[in-house]
Amino acid sequence: MCYGYWKAKVHEEPACFDLFFRKNPFHGEFTVFAGLEDCLRFVQNFRFSKSDIDYLRSILPTSSEDEFFEYLQSLDCSNIRIHAPPEGSVVFPKVPLITVEGPLAIAQLLETTFLNLVNYASLVATNAARFRQVSGEKIELLEFGLRRAQGPNGGLTASKYCYVGGFDATSNLLAGKLFGIPVKGTQAHSFVTAFSSAKDLKIRQIKHASEDKMVDIFELSRAKVDYLFDNMNWGASKEEVSEGELAAFCAYAIAFPTTFLALIDTYDVLRSGVINFCAVSLALYDIGYHALGVRIDSGDLSYQSKELRSRFRQVSKLHEDLAWFENVKIVASNDIDEDTITSLNEQQHDITSFGVGTHLVTCRKQPALGCVYKLVAVSGQAKIKLSQEVAKISIPGRKKCYRIYSKVGHNIIDLMMLHDEDEPQVDKQILCRHPFEESKRAYAIPAKVERLDLCFWADGELQQKLPTLQEIRKHVKSSINLLRPDHRRMLNPTPYKVSVSEKLYQFLHDHWLQHAPIGLLY
Amino acid sequence: MCYGYWKAKVHEEPACFDLFFRKNPFHGEFTVFAGLEDCLRFVQNFRFSKSDIDYLRSILPTSSEDEFFEYLQSLDCSNIRIHAPPEGSVVFPKVPLITVEGPLAIAQLLETTFLNLVNYASLVATNAARFRQVSGEKIELLEFGLRRAQGPNGGLTASKYCYVGGFDATSNLLAGKLFGIPVKGTQAHSFVTAFSSAKDLKIRQIKHASEDKMVDIFELSRAKVDYLFDNMNWGASKEEVSEGELAAFCAYAIAFPTTFLALIDTYDVLRSGVINFCAVSLALYDIGYHALGVRIDSGDLSYQSKELRSRFRQVSKLHEDLAWFENVKIVASNDIDEDTITSLNEQQHDITSFGVGTHLVTCRKQPALGCVYKLVAVSGQAKIKLSQEVAKISIPGRKKCYRIYSKVGHNIIDLMMLHDEDEPQVDKQILCRHPFEESKRAYAIPAKVERLDLCFWADGELQQKLPTLQEIRKHVKSSINLLRPDHRRMLNPTPYKVSVSEKLYQFLHDHWLQHAPIGLLY
Repeated sequence: MCYGYWKAKVHEEPACFDLFFRKNPFHGEFTVFAGLEDCLRFVQNFRFSKSDIDYLRSILPTSSEDEFFEYLQSLDCSNIRIHAPPEGSVVFPKVPLITVEGPLAIAQLLETTFLNLVNYASLVATNAARFRQVSGEKIELLEFGLRRAQGPNGGLTASKYCYVGGFDATSNLLAGKLFGIPVKGTQAHSFVTAFSSAKDLKIRQIKHASEDKMVDIFELSRAKVDYLFDNMNWGASKEEVSEGELAAFCAYAIAFPTTFLALIDTYDVLRSGVINFCAVSLALYDIGYHALGVRIDSGDLSYQSKELRSRFRQVSKLHEDLAWFENVKIVASNDIDEDTITSLNEQQHDITSFGVGTHLVTCRKQPALGCVYKLVAVSGQAKIKLSQEVAKISIPGRKKCYRIYSKVGHNIIDLMMLHDEDEPQVDKQILCRHPFEESKRAYAIPAKVERLDLCFWADGELQQKLPTLQEIRKHVKSSINLLRPDHRRMLNPTPYKVSVSEKLYQFLHDHWLQHAPIGLLY
Repeated sequence: MCYGYWKAKVHEEPACFDLFFRKNPFHGEFTVFAGLEDCLRFVQNFRFSKSDIDYLRSILPTSSEDEFFEYLQSLDCSNIRIHAPPEGSVVFPKVPLITVEGPLAIAQLLETTFLNLVNYASLVATNAARFRQVSGEKIELLEFGLRRAQGPNGGLTASKYCYVGGFDATSNLLAGKLFGIPVKGTQAHSFVTAFSSAKDLKIRQIKHASEDKMVDIFELSRAKVDYLFDNMNWGASKEEVSEGELAAFCAYAIAFPTTFLALIDTYDVLRSGVINFCAVSLALYDIGYHALGVRIDSGDLSYQSKELRSRFRQVSKLHEDLAWFENVKIVASNDIDEDTITSLNEQQHDITSFGVGTHLVTCRKQPALGCVYKLVAVSGQAKIKLSQEVAKISIPGRKKCYRIYSKVGHNIIDLMMLHDEDEPQVDKQILCRHPFEESKRAYAIPAKVERLDLCFWADGELQQKLPTLQEIRKHVKSSINLLRPDHRRMLNPTPYKVSVSEKLYQFLHDHWLQHAPIGLLY
């Protein structure tokens, strides 16, 4: 296409493209905008390398002219201007996420990269934000998705934008290293099954937390198993408690005495795992350490979490110093999705942390956002992309976008206007029209007006200091919290209104009629 | 976990892990194994960098010992052995895709990377192979998925393994450059809408293919529109034919006279697009060029393809030299999935090429394969991962895996055996047992026996010459073709049998009973 523009000598014509989506994902009514920094970094470093040019020369028809390749080699993004809302903002259908202005050919060349960088980042950040919504603020959310992502880099993108969307930590160490995201993980079943019996535990000594002495944690833990059976009813016999599992937990506790978190479902959660966990935790406590908690990865997570909490409560009552034991962590994993969490909530689970993998990073509920990149103006002429489906018609021309807030502080409507219109005024009534449906109109009296399309790139330079990942993450949270609860609820949320000004409405409909051919009936 | 193993001094214990999946994806009964070369390249270059170690030191508890980090720094994969079937083989549930033997800690460290590299590669290659199955051999399949992939690298992985699975080309230029995959693409709607009328077409001259003269292609094409209306009934009036579209097609033809392929649905496929395409193609033909065809990206693809083919046939009859016109390409895109193609087949469409994006790369029908990596032996002891769900129980011990073929040449069963058993003999009856269901047994008389687990990595070196991408792609095709048609059909395929030898059956069940605790009923 770039060669086509160049041959037609329209490659330098001033053009404007809008990047937007048409429908919020996951049956929701909001989307988290992410991927902007990646786009800006791409623009900053946009260059065809010598080997790129050689490759393009090898695949384009032999008739392609040398001057074109010289042109490509000279390209950079110094003539491009990029407007967008801040990364992490809540965004809605039809309103541009990114507006690119500049020479037609260069602006066109950015299409696929921008779509690639924004589509998945926004999708997975939105997915993460929805997991946060449904889980509530108090739950710890851990991203465990690397093994299900589209290759190593797909995994990195997932970890980064899940954190942005509201997850607390990742098990992806490279994401931790590169982006400073907190990393958390537990042991796997293989660690537990690696120990079959006491004799597989070669090292048993652990240093006391405050005293200069070594203790045999396995002997101590074994004594604690006896103590637990003597003082509590576990609904199981001592023979059912796996010695291999106890050995594995001791090995793990020796390595991580301050952060002991055990996977307890390798044999039987309630008849073995929890007993061994409690035993090792009591042993650790004797020598000055607090255990963190347990992870369960199979079975009825709600039932188990409540049974576990009840066991922990009973243990906490065994001694006055053990009050903290009631609140140790219960991490649940195993194919967790939004609906699982909703169902667990209804059952009043006692889980403190969810480890989420597959459904989070693959966005199983809807694995693509469907952003598009449409030409809205070229050479000063507004362009419209028509379609038989009204929802697919693009809104022509370079626009200004505003978010209007109510007195209560919620944003109530997004408004697109022609580029040369006056901006909406606080306390001044303004007519907001549905872009396509003539009868849908509303007056808004803004308590606050926020410009959405901020300039991020112009004159070959970044125009704003880019926020850190932490700051973007905070912005996601506050941006979602500004939404009315009915827009952000999980089931049948109210659609958020996206509108155009009266002038833009007329402009859009004039263009529509002008370009839609009148069919001839025979 | 690695620190846990190291502290327990079990890190050097000889271990064996199996990487396998439990269920074929997409309601199918086969899976294409992909990602092996990526795993082997990772193993070849496995090293902790100085900055990795620094990072790990910063996140592990301060009590972690210096010697551990020295140990990490010394690690490589020279003591690892890797067995696997050749990349591109058809594979089935429970049979190991990769077996890793070596020191417990290192073999464990490979888990997440191997799962990441095999899971998505195999999933998307399988998806691509299914698109090929449902489309038939004659259809051209184009991968257009970059904009919906998990970031740029997710897109590269997708392009690579879609090609392996049977796609013909990609629109991802970097995948073309890096992997030598053929690249193909067409124009986008923005190219078409960039031209509003004749006056936007600044350049109109095109060189004659064989004569040294320049021709005004726009004038010639406009004359061809008149000619087409004079000689055929288009069911439309000449006023409905978009002049901007004609200008855009001319611009594209000037750039690509030898490979002219036009997107014809910007205005109206049958009342404008096809007429402009035919006009420009006839103009091109007058000056010595053959047009390639059209792309449609909306509407009723089957109906349109048949109408288009009928128009092309009529044009081909306008002159004896135009016989070729009947067979120009019809490329269809727009949310194509397996079911769309099945439905189009039923309607006897006239499409020659499918451009597939979202459903292909996101594997919308099932976005994760679910490979797992399970410890099956350590320190000479076989290990079993138990579960309440029988399907989740792992098959313990280091195994040998064979594929048994019938006289007709189809593979009829995969057979796992204990590592020290004699291999199955041609023409010699052997009992094959379902791993879990006692009554499911079958005798096989192999016409051919193929060892599945070949050694790819040992003694710090590759043990096989790795195939090229083209060779892997061919292997996928022949491997699928060896399957009985009822195993590879789309709807309700017959499950392929995966079995264990009598000895492995006994071994598995002994371990199972030995490790499954007997509950005590109160």
